[in-house]
Amino acid sequence: MQVSLQINARWVITVDADDNVLENHAVIIQDDIIIDVLPQQDAKKYSPVELIECNDHALAPGFINAHTHAAMSLLKGLADDLPLDEWLNDHIWPAETALADSDFVKDGTELAIAEMIRGGTTCFNDMYFFIDQTATAVSNTGIRACLGIPVIDFPTRWAKDLNEYISKGLAVHDHFRSNELIHFTFAPHAPYTVCDDSLKTIQPIMDELGLAMHIHLHETEDEVEQSIAKHGVSPIARLNNLGLLNPDLMAIHMTHLSATDIQLIAEHRVNVIHCPESNLKLASGFCPVNELITSNINIAIGTDGSASNNDIDMLGETKTAALLTKGRTKQADALPAKTALRMATINGAKALRLDKKIGSLEIGKQADMFAINLNSIETQPIYDVISTLIYSANRSQITDVWVAGQRLMQDQQLTTLDEAQLIEKVKHWQRKINPFHHQPNKAV
Amino acid sequence: MQVSLQINARWVITVDADDNVLENHAVIIQDDIIIDVLPQQDAKKYSPVELIECNDHALAPGFINAHTHAAMSLLKGLADDLPLDEWLNDHIWPAETALADSDFVKDGTELAIAEMIRGGTTCFNDMYFFIDQTATAVSNTGIRACLGIPVIDFPTRWAKDLNEYISKGLAVHDHFRSNELIHFTFAPHAPYTVCDDSLKTIQPIMDELGLAMHIHLHETEDEVEQSIAKHGVSPIARLNNLGLLNPDLMAIHMTHLSATDIQLIAEHRVNVIHCPESNLKLASGFCPVNELITSNINIAIGTDGSASNNDIDMLGETKTAALLTKGRTKQADALPAKTALRMATINGAKALRLDKKIGSLEIGKQADMFAINLNSIETQPIYDVISTLIYSANRSQITDVWVAGQRLMQDQQLTTLDEAQLIEKVKHWQRKINPFHHQPNKAV
Repeated sequence: MQVSLQINARWVITVDADDNVLENHAVIIQDDIIIDVLPQQDAKKYSPVELIECNDHALAPGFINAHTHAAMSLLKGLADDLPLDEWLNDHIWPAETALADSDFVKDGTELAIAEMIRGGTTCFNDMYFFIDQTATAVSNTGIRACLGIPVIDFPTRWAKDLNEYISKGLAVHDHFRSNELIHFTFAPHAPYTVCDDSLKTIQPIMDELGLAMHIHLHETEDEVEQSIAKHGVSPIARLNNLGLLNPDLMAIHMTHLSATDIQLIAEHRVNVIHCPESNLKLASGFCPVNELITSNINIAIGTDGSASNNDIDMLGETKTAALLTKGRTKQADALPAKTALRMATINGAKALRLDKKIGSLEIGKQADMFAINLNSIETQPIYDVISTLIYSANRSQITDVWVAGQRLMQDQQLTTLDEAQLIEKVKHWQRKINPFHHQPNKAV
Repeated sequence: MQVSLQINARWVITVDADDNVLENHAVIIQDDIIIDVLPQQDAKKYSPVELIECNDHALAPGFINAHTHAAMSLLKGLADDLPLDEWLNDHIWPAETALADSDFVKDGTELAIAEMIRGGTTCFNDMYFFIDQTATAVSNTGIRACLGIPVIDFPTRWAKDLNEYISKGLAVHDHFRSNELIHFTFAPHAPYTVCDDSLKTIQPIMDELGLAMHIHLHETEDEVEQSIAKHGVSPIARLNNLGLLNPDLMAIHMTHLSATDIQLIAEHRVNVIHCPESNLKLASGFCPVNELITSNINIAIGTDGSASNNDIDMLGETKTAALLTKGRTKQADALPAKTALRMATINGAKALRLDKKIGSLEIGKQADMFAINLNSIETQPIYDVISTLIYSANRSQITDVWVAGQRLMQDQQLTTLDEAQLIEKVKHWQRKINPFHHQPNKAV
């Protein structure tokens, strides 16, 4: 039988229901779909148009970055080591207000997509303005994405009021609706920047179009305290009062949770997106990952945007998640590598309601995956390949990345983006953005 | 004037007293010593035998890994995600007892040295057995190291009792005493494995030879509680009672510290070595880095051994230290990138009492340094090069490493070690060590 692609891999990390790791197996791909996974010696019945030998590699499902602001890569490292309010009010927001236009989003998103593909991320869940540009960048580069239609109660360069946020967002949604790789959510920014009326306005539209909701929630202790002061309840309880808690909600960050909050999340099967490095860098607090897992809550991992991280490296983020949970709970067996990897792949797919299509390497799923060469000083010896991947390997060892069967990185070269040209564009932006830079040496 | 080497760098990160970053400067090296650092246009007075252009690179002082067990790289990933006692008693110790001989130390140390050089580490502070093998590996590869003469109150393959630990250790010390790159400490394993009498026995020898002491201290809450139960005081207070607190002490880990403990450390100017990833992975607790800095205590960074990390990546470790301190203290401006970099370089040199020779790029210092190419998707744009190095860059971007002027890595190729051959040796060890592996899939 002729097929488009056969990959022979030393290890196939399936992330199936039993976390099976298959040794010396072949993954058979027809166009965009995995049609078989079988021992290499049994694969002779297939005549692949392309045969790729990954004898030193693990093949794994592509990472799903469940929360980011791709365009913000242009602000990577703009203002580090500052208190949150100074970071946001004196640097990030002024820079965005002055510069975050259509071109900014186009170039910033391309930079982020390049970084994500290089790091094995095959799908990202985005929240930003000018989603027409984001969608175009996604479409041009061949990555998969879920784009949040932004809603915020103040004007930006993208829209002047709620109506415009909605109408512009829906126009992009309509324009890209036939693109198999682009999905949409509604993305009200946060409970403290979007009022009840705005939420009530978008609710029937989400329901009608079957769109999920993507919102920053319980990011800081302040946010929770202010919500209690203003609304009498925590942010998650407020969303519950509005009837917005359900399996179609992605709640980003989720630190400072009371037992009642956790019960609400569990009851309504809300998805939690954990962004450990952003929470650390901005000193936001700790997401109680282990407690949420115990309550059978679906948790995925996001990098957040580059301004608050400063990398969008899902492999590094997953390691941080695994280590941080052990440290915080004082349990060295908390959040094992296997579970952390599930959070970075299949749990992200579940949160995006795409788990029938992506998130694991199984027959019938989309060929969204990466190959990582483990035959290096850093990743030898190997006693357990998932442990090696999460705790020792580095994204720079990733050699090849596919989305829907298309090879977006081949032998560490991007195929749909010109890296050198992109870096030149970024340097141009750096000169424009530089005046908003926090200069630690000169600020004393 | 003829000199051996001139390196033109886009940025020279000096880690001098003012954290100066020099742009488009040249570093001039005569044999093993930095003899000048000056603007490139003024460097014409030098005729270098070798001129290296690092136009996209930052040149920085090599990392000083202030605590590791190099040979344990062979146990990397052997037993992850386990409670500390099970990890140690059922896997690490049995494997060491059965296998940790002279060959194990030779090959494991070479693996660790290869990983360290590739990651920009130019000096490491080691604690393990068979230090004759460690010293030989260090000498053969050209890295700089400080080797701990091990002392522990039970027999190992290396020595049967205190006298043998001391005599064998001193023999190695004598044998390598003329080697400029090899230094020694006394390394009693920990307060709970070395009794007062043993400590009292080594004290005059340390004094006579002018050797510092390297000891695990306050690694876990249990250790502190057991010390109080058995000795009536915390481990650090016990060492104080023995007269062992002084600027020549390197105290490794230092979690669970009372205000009195911190006061003792400050008063006696003890050096603290922070190993954040090991502390997280083994759920040991948090070192109060910010509080120690406020008390003017010298803190350096160590990776610990590969069995408890599982990488010996000083750049990653330093990022983790910076992020973790912010998260733990709830202060986003705690442990800024500059301070974290000092911990990974000059503070390590101070702890090892080598700060006159290494730890910064300044005239008169040894040419121990690395070049890192920052012209990549992951590290553009650059607003502050130290921030970029600590928060965005990856050790895989390091291209060249020098120790005492000798280029140990050139364009990402090791010059004193054969990587392919080494990996083959490691695979051989893996087969022998495999029976001690914790198999998470089969343990249910």
